[in-house]
Amino acid sequence: MSDDVRAQPYDPRTTRLLAFHEAREAFLRGRDTPRAYLERCIETIEALEPLVSAFVCTNLDGARAAADASTERYRNAKPLSQVDGLPIGIKDLYETADMPTQMNSPIYAGYQSHRDAACVYALRTHGACIVGKTTTTEFGIATPDRTRNPFDFKRTPGGSSSGSAAAVGARMLPAALGTQLKGSIIRPAGYCANYAIKPSFGALNRGGGHSTSPSGSHLGVHAGSLRDTWEIAWFLSHTAGPDAGCTALSGSAQLPEARKPTRLVRMFTPGWGLTPEPARAAFEALLARLAAAGVEIVEPDSHPQTIALEADFRSADEIVSDIASYEMRWPMWTYRDRGEHLLSDKLKVYLTRARAMSVEDYHRALAWRAGFRHRHMALAGYADGFISLSSPGPAPLGIESVGDPVYQTPTSALGAPVFGLPLLAVAALPQGVQLMGFTGGDERTAAHARWICDALLGA
Amino acid sequence: MSDDVRAQPYDPRTTRLLAFHEAREAFLRGRDTPRAYLERCIETIEALEPLVSAFVCTNLDGARAAADASTERYRNAKPLSQVDGLPIGIKDLYETADMPTQMNSPIYAGYQSHRDAACVYALRTHGACIVGKTTTTEFGIATPDRTRNPFDFKRTPGGSSSGSAAAVGARMLPAALGTQLKGSIIRPAGYCANYAIKPSFGALNRGGGHSTSPSGSHLGVHAGSLRDTWEIAWFLSHTAGPDAGCTALSGSAQLPEARKPTRLVRMFTPGWGLTPEPARAAFEALLARLAAAGVEIVEPDSHPQTIALEADFRSADEIVSDIASYEMRWPMWTYRDRGEHLLSDKLKVYLTRARAMSVEDYHRALAWRAGFRHRHMALAGYADGFISLSSPGPAPLGIESVGDPVYQTPTSALGAPVFGLPLLAVAALPQGVQLMGFTGGDERTAAHARWICDALLGA
Repeated sequence: MSDDVRAQPYDPRTTRLLAFHEAREAFLRGRDTPRAYLERCIETIEALEPLVSAFVCTNLDGARAAADASTERYRNAKPLSQVDGLPIGIKDLYETADMPTQMNSPIYAGYQSHRDAACVYALRTHGACIVGKTTTTEFGIATPDRTRNPFDFKRTPGGSSSGSAAAVGARMLPAALGTQLKGSIIRPAGYCANYAIKPSFGALNRGGGHSTSPSGSHLGVHAGSLRDTWEIAWFLSHTAGPDAGCTALSGSAQLPEARKPTRLVRMFTPGWGLTPEPARAAFEALLARLAAAGVEIVEPDSHPQTIALEADFRSADEIVSDIASYEMRWPMWTYRDRGEHLLSDKLKVYLTRARAMSVEDYHRALAWRAGFRHRHMALAGYADGFISLSSPGPAPLGIESVGDPVYQTPTSALGAPVFGLPLLAVAALPQGVQLMGFTGGDERTAAHARWICDALLGA
Repeated sequence: MSDDVRAQPYDPRTTRLLAFHEAREAFLRGRDTPRAYLERCIETIEALEPLVSAFVCTNLDGARAAADASTERYRNAKPLSQVDGLPIGIKDLYETADMPTQMNSPIYAGYQSHRDAACVYALRTHGACIVGKTTTTEFGIATPDRTRNPFDFKRTPGGSSSGSAAAVGARMLPAALGTQLKGSIIRPAGYCANYAIKPSFGALNRGGGHSTSPSGSHLGVHAGSLRDTWEIAWFLSHTAGPDAGCTALSGSAQLPEARKPTRLVRMFTPGWGLTPEPARAAFEALLARLAAAGVEIVEPDSHPQTIALEADFRSADEIVSDIASYEMRWPMWTYRDRGEHLLSDKLKVYLTRARAMSVEDYHRALAWRAGFRHRHMALAGYADGFISLSSPGPAPLGIESVGDPVYQTPTSALGAPVFGLPLLAVAALPQGVQLMGFTGGDERTAAHARWICDALLGA
């Protein structure tokens, strides 16, 4: 099992996941083919899937047929798109014409929609190889599936995008789609050493996907390289289009050039208080390295508006939980009425919360979130972005919990672009960092993320 | 067939459709029961449905069981809600647990979602009797079904909410749900002498419904009385909640008291140029009566901002068509790929239009619409609302076309509250009028609508 990521101690400077953009170069030069690349992915899947359980189901025959057609196109120097030949996993909240969509819920056991979600349609019609459906917690918000962290099978991969993070972390796939309402992309990405993007709210089309909280859920991309996260997200945003009424990703199809941030605000969030010393020390050292490289790191207590934003961060979980609870009443009440046992107790907590809410409570929560977003945007002239850990330490032991989204709930509520960057190791396990920019400024944040990765990991 | 609305010449002052609020009073006083009321509806359905074809399917057993339970609750003086015992039809774009949802498309022939849409769930769990699914054009935008106008079977009932308008107009039901992207509620309501509300965008939860253009489609209510349109819409907005991220209807559960508008702007839109003399004369006479009653009627050429808004009205159809075309690419492309014959040529026109659009074209259309909405809202201090016909004359002959949405496309694009009022007769056929207010001010517009109806038809 030479491809097992556990073969070497984890080190963000040397551990390498799959980078599709490198493979594409090789396809174009005739040194590799999409079919051969896919077969290597399948070998890893066959070796590790019994231990990791990243997939709910796969369609390897379908993926192989797509890879063969892609191979032929590269042979003729006529790939369809930047994603031609890309083996990719789809979080099992999104519909696929060739596989069921089950959402880790007995309600959807065996459910076949017979259509591709907008993002899946864009990928498939542009040459990507849809390998399988990756595991999720129940409806992306409650009971975990049985997936394990590829860096330590005794640990959670995080969630709710558990299978996507684990498949990329295990080098089974170069990329997978994830979704985030609280911390469901960036946290598992950090636990599994993925790069990831949670773009500005609405930049990627969620048509054909289950959004637990339609006004707050995001679609995003997990990948083995920063370049792939950007290029796949940009492709999706400009091919499937943004969500209705929203704006597509700014910038261009290629990852922007590295750009040194002038000033970054350090985010504590309620997460710092839950973060043990080794992860704190690793993050302080990272900030010191950035400062030494000439990036001004601002402590939030140094500016009245960042003080106010930290106070907002402490309210975000209540607000997001209120908004999500209210928005999930339908369809969850229809499901519960079919049988109480069909929804987990963890899910029912949200329904109980919703029952205590009036529509005025919902309006108040929306108004608070809108104000929060204004207070954040008002800092766009002051700083280039915000930086924090993506979790209070590396992946916890056990798979009954997918970890704490405490560092992400505030950034999700802002709808701002966030990159998950695998910049640290703590106790020889991956420890992610999140970089947040300003809504609509995804390209600029990507350029800053690139500079930070180059500065800390080497270009 | 004494209940046939054609038994007397149509006259808005004397023709009466079903008013559920009157029935509810009778239920409360023990003079009538929900079951008896439903049976009278069913008698009318059995008499007229072979001629009108308002329904795709019905569940009369289910409706009767609901009516019996409701009868029992009224007997105990414990109705569940304002809609307890209400027989209602659901436009066949919205899911019903007990009936298929077919959208007048072969793609969805026999499709069963096994769940109620958010609005249907709210109705059913609060005692309403879901009688059947009412006809729609294909996906609410293309090929008509075979429904006929109850006031003249040779004419269209309008569309896309064809069956809802026809069922209410034929006195089969006191109310039905409709949807509107361009003119799909207010126009057929006018053709069939319904009252109707297309509330502010997002005020009624569209969960479990097909929205051809999610950023522009509205859910609304057709009814036989103004009071029922308001009270059912308000009930839905406060029980199912608004759309995610949106605001519920203002005001209270009861139709607000009549309030005389001080100043109304007359809207021409491109519709006036298509309107033949008899309908023009009827509308001019209506404006003269309002003016005689002390309402200032402003001609749009008298104020720079209303001149600008009339110019905007002329652009609205192009913009709405662009936005809708782009937003319907998914899922329509997935359907077309299953077989070209599965989508009508009329629907494919939108897909062809979308193919010529870039995401920047889509952004431009959204930005134009946002500016249009600002220009409209800027008049909120100047006038109480806007008034026009709801169609260029009464329902046209033939059922191959559902008529021209030319008077509504601009008001739909604004996302503003609109009431359809059956105030006129032209050639002894119903001719509707639309009253538009300002987004979020639905209650105020309802109060103005009530005053206008009282003034013109008698309180």
